Amino acid sequence: MPSTPPSDALNAWFLGPRGENAELLERLLTEALRDHIFWRRNHHPEDGFTIRELDKRREGYDRAVATLTQELLGLLAELKRGVPFFSGRYKGHMVFEQTIAAQVGYFAAMLYNPNNVAIEASPVTTRLEVEVGAQLADMMGYAPERAWGHLTSGGTVANFEALWFARNVIYLPVAARGAAEELGVRLSVERADGSRADIGELDLWELLNVHPDAALDLWQELWRTAPRDEVQKALDSYSLQALGYQDYARKLEERFGDALPPSVVLVASTAHYSWEKIVRALGIGSNQLIFVPVDTRFRMDPEALWRTVVELTERRVPILACISVCGTTEESAMDRLDEVLAVRERARWELGVSFHLHSDACYGGYAASVTWNRDGGRRTADEIRASVALAPEVEEGKPWPSPEWVRSMEALAQADSVTIDPHKLGYIPYPAGAIVFRDRRARELVSVDPPYLLPTQGLGSAEDLFLGRYIFEGSKPGAAAASVWLSHKVLPLDERGYGHLIERTVAGARILYRALGQADLRPFRLIRLPEPDLNIVCFLLTHPGFRTLDEVNALNEGIYARMSLSEPGAQPQYILTRTRFQTPMYDGAMEPILADLGLGSVDHWKAGGKEGLVILRSTVMDPFLAGGSPDGPDHVAGMVQEIRSAAGQALRELRVV
Amino acid sequence: MPSTPPSDALNAWFLGPRGENAELLERLLTEALRDHIFWRRNHHPEDGFTIRELDKRREGYDRAVATLTQELLGLLAELKRGVPFFSGRYKGHMVFEQTIAAQVGYFAAMLYNPNNVAIEASPVTTRLEVEVGAQLADMMGYAPERAWGHLTSGGTVANFEALWFARNVIYLPVAARGAAEELGVRLSVERADGSRADIGELDLWELLNVHPDAALDLWQELWRTAPRDEVQKALDSYSLQALGYQDYARKLEERFGDALPPSVVLVASTAHYSWEKIVRALGIGSNQLIFVPVDTRFRMDPEALWRTVVELTERRVPILACISVCGTTEESAMDRLDEVLAVRERARWELGVSFHLHSDACYGGYAASVTWNRDGGRRTADEIRASVALAPEVEEGKPWPSPEWVRSMEALAQADSVTIDPHKLGYIPYPAGAIVFRDRRARELVSVDPPYLLPTQGLGSAEDLFLGRYIFEGSKPGAAAASVWLSHKVLPLDERGYGHLIERTVAGARILYRALGQADLRPFRLIRLPEPDLNIVCFLLTHPGFRTLDEVNALNEGIYARMSLSEPGAQPQYILTRTRFQTPMYDGAMEPILADLGLGSVDHWKAGGKEGLVILRSTVMDPFLAGGSPDGPDHVAGMVQEIRSAAGQALRELRVV
Repeated sequence: MPSTPPSDALNAWFLGPRGENAELLERLLTEALRDHIFWRRNHHPEDGFTIRELDKRREGYDRAVATLTQELLGLLAELKRGVPFFSGRYKGHMVFEQTIAAQVGYFAAMLYNPNNVAIEASPVTTRLEVEVGAQLADMMGYAPERAWGHLTSGGTVANFEALWFARNVIYLPVAARGAAEELGVRLSVERADGSRADIGELDLWELLNVHPDAALDLWQELWRTAPRDEVQKALDSYSLQALGYQDYARKLEERFGDALPPSVVLVASTAHYSWEKIVRALGIGSNQLIFVPVDTRFRMDPEALWRTVVELTERRVPILACISVCGTTEESAMDRLDEVLAVRERARWELGVSFHLHSDACYGGYAASVTWNRDGGRRTADEIRASVALAPEVEEGKPWPSPEWVRSMEALAQADSVTIDPHKLGYIPYPAGAIVFRDRRARELVSVDPPYLLPTQGLGSAEDLFLGRYIFEGSKPGAAAASVWLSHKVLPLDERGYGHLIERTVAGARILYRALGQADLRPFRLIRLPEPDLNIVCFLLTHPGFRTLDEVNALNEGIYARMSLSEPGAQPQYILTRTRFQTPMYDGAMEPILADLGLGSVDHWKAGGKEGLVILRSTVMDPFLAGGSPDGPDHVAGMVQEIRSAAGQALRELRVV
Repeated sequence: MPSTPPSDALNAWFLGPRGENAELLERLLTEALRDHIFWRRNHHPEDGFTIRELDKRREGYDRAVATLTQELLGLLAELKRGVPFFSGRYKGHMVFEQTIAAQVGYFAAMLYNPNNVAIEASPVTTRLEVEVGAQLADMMGYAPERAWGHLTSGGTVANFEALWFARNVIYLPVAARGAAEELGVRLSVERADGSRADIGELDLWELLNVHPDAALDLWQELWRTAPRDEVQKALDSYSLQALGYQDYARKLEERFGDALPPSVVLVASTAHYSWEKIVRALGIGSNQLIFVPVDTRFRMDPEALWRTVVELTERRVPILACISVCGTTEESAMDRLDEVLAVRERARWELGVSFHLHSDACYGGYAASVTWNRDGGRRTADEIRASVALAPEVEEGKPWPSPEWVRSMEALAQADSVTIDPHKLGYIPYPAGAIVFRDRRARELVSVDPPYLLPTQGLGSAEDLFLGRYIFEGSKPGAAAASVWLSHKVLPLDERGYGHLIERTVAGARILYRALGQADLRPFRLIRLPEPDLNIVCFLLTHPGFRTLDEVNALNEGIYARMSLSEPGAQPQYILTRTRFQTPMYDGAMEPILADLGLGSVDHWKAGGKEGLVILRSTVMDPFLAGGSPDGPDHVAGMVQEIRSAAGQALRELRVV
């Protein structure tokens, strides 16, 4: 069967801004509902009916139905005050429609209400979750036989879990040394420089700098040295999990004379605010969150990362993990992960320093689908560019993707863990976060009742299916797994499915970016931030009469107020959102923006403090924007027009005040 | 309008074991779907259609629809291997059907896909979540103007959040003392004994034993002493959130000469395994989880709790929190929370010891609805008993509820925090956990960007609606809030709604309990555990020929294997589940069980180690069990018959082996 272009399929993937595919969706939902009902009716038909027709004739039944119907109608009326994420006019946060497959899959499984905490409560959907985890790991380029992944309620829990796992891996060698001594066994470990040594020879600094892979080898080795109960007991006397930080630090001090400063977590300065929550909750402390400056593209600056590592090493501060971002929530910026990885390698060989490398790809992870062709191979930047097919003038000499972009995505295969939210660029209903690990052994270190898995027990084994044992959450909706699973079946994670979908959003973003650059908004001037790595377009407006950043901020806040649902009763023609660039997080990116504004230097901006700079943002998750709406208005032009109009009104209001 | 009996309404609350209410459910779902579709079509109709009818005639479109339909049919076929939670024959885990209101509410809101992280992404459902939080707080008996609650993805995250909040409250006085010194301000605080003192006069032990209410007053006081930025900066130099445990402990040692031992968390020995995950993740360490023995009813023993507190105080070990359980997941046992509270009061006045008191009511929380009448007043035990209306012989001289049971539920009003899972006894689809706090000020202590709320800004204020700021999770489904909200509208949280529903499950459980007691299973003997506090019936079978617990365990495992879906392809007539009582967790409850078995003493059992004792369990969440199925088999009798048959088969298999 010859293949058909994915652009045709795209029209069947979503309900559509006008509910164009309403019949399709209703047919599938009704099918799922009736299929479920007749499953019930076919389950021991001899049991007869519990609720009889006569019971339905009673006044109390009728009243309950009336209450239910009335309250539902009330809810439906309320819901209409919701956000029209589906509309071509919505270009605000990272939400759009969900795929029909995801909606129907969620609904179909929800009727069965499986709980993926354990196979006993979800014989079907736990398997779907394991399958989905493997698909996401594949998309990262992980080796299937080593990798492992699962769903979470969202990005915060997924990122939390990454750091929780990382802590257990990085601190394992310290516990293993204590355990080995207690057990009176010899244990050999790979040092940061690749040489092998008896674990007793490593000092605290070296123990905290064992490479994550070597730490997992050590874990496996340890269980071979003595009976399980004895190993467990010995480990419990030295592990952070059991001791807690307070006793752990004391024990290190007693043993090594000095506990060293607390381990730190490196993160790009533009990282999501949840990272602060996470390090606080884990007991690491927000002071240990070290912000690495970003460059003018909002990416972690690899040079600055190297300097940070060197400086920390000089002060003997151990590094627990480095968090690289693949798709910042504000700008869709993607770190040059290949360069970040190179810094880690260099640190290992030149400084003897190792740490866990995590990619927070909650937003951008699905974009890896763009790099895969239908045969399971990688696509080159040129191949992708050919299928995005942007006109040269839209590319503005900076075609997407660059070979460097492709390299960053390919580098995900070498991260120790990656978090990816299906409920963002996977177009899945909330809640669906996910985490994948390069090395599945890591999960044993957090398991409450460790099954001491040996590598012979593979994916899909019985142990594999009691998810609640390995992950932070317990009860969780099997429906989410069915939703992601069905969507991945309909939209493969390559150029035919998600790859095409995400390409279209990038195309839409670049067309909008170009239009904003071309727009004549006089007397206003529109300043674009650099072209996005993915599909979030950032810009701001200014006016030749402005003398201060306060005026610029007031103008852009005024535009935002008119182009958002932030005010009750607002009926904006087009919807965007805004963010605020603050010091010191954005210091590295401000120079060209301020130069373009012509309103002072970076130092001057820094002195301004928390006010920062208000930036307008448009997330283009709408794959139809690039194609235009054949029978209706051009939403790109409409958006530009609306910005002009909102700016005019905002300026008048400013002058009155 | 005169009121109708809730038993009539019950027939309209669920789809029904035979899909009896299929028409009702389909009508409402279709209404919600079409209502949503026409909302889309009425949004800027001038925009025209993005997907045109001709686009649907293309081959690629057609193929995509074919793929979607085919894969959905495959999923539907798979789902039929799921667990028939809806059936009168399922009496295993704590799952049943969900209310129609919950299913329809979830579905209706899911089409809009709101994200309750912030009001901007969920103008409707964030408000519903705030309302639901207030309803749950009301059900606990909390003062509405002080309380606060919200939804979570489940019980683990909710319990985690409780302890995370508790840590910040309990450690606040230490940070406040440091901050006050740095700011050069005087700060007065209430000591454990009720007297007031300048905070500088309190030593570390006293600071860690300030009552949670007094700690929150202190927080509020602190912000009044100096400008916000200064207070924040001073606090950051001393707070655990910022310092992390390792530096925090060092700082305490420098300052007070001794950091004291790490703070501990007290929990009933039968607590859910997630508590161990939680203390590990928080960096508290599992060694700091102190298990308080249970009594023969699986409830935390208040005497033992008191002795534990005294003993810890003698060793100068600070107590962070005490976790009381309202509805253990294995036995539905409910701590005598009134007595646990009395221990806390006594500790405060006699020992000068204070700690956070949390009730893990993830399972049992909704049972508080039983204690409320339709006028917002409390019902007495006698009133409730009259509406449960069990025959005296079923009561077996132990009517439900006892006045003590009612007192335990009323005592929830005095717990500092309570976690309640709507996706358990709320009959809501996953995911829906919840947490409520007696004092909403606590949330400011964990907020990433603290808004320094003054009490004048009440519930529903703008600050209130950015949930992601105060809670651990970020993105989360607004659909869950709509689901809980609609279900609460149809089933009020009192005798008319959830109260009635839960009463029926208790009635069913007691009828099953009675039948198991009366059953003639010769040659087997069925030993019942004490009558449940709620609706989980536990028992085990033995045989006169057995000489060891291993034989007893093998028999009960054999019964479980035949009455569960644990083996692939199993088609059990009735479904139950099992648990394993292990030492030392269950030591306090074993004596009567072992005496009844006649197979050795508790000491002997302890020596048996991890094997423990296999216990069969039936959770009765089915409100129809007590009424019987008029046209079909008696499921109580059927269950007893099936146990007899499974036991016979299991014994034969044992003898062959």
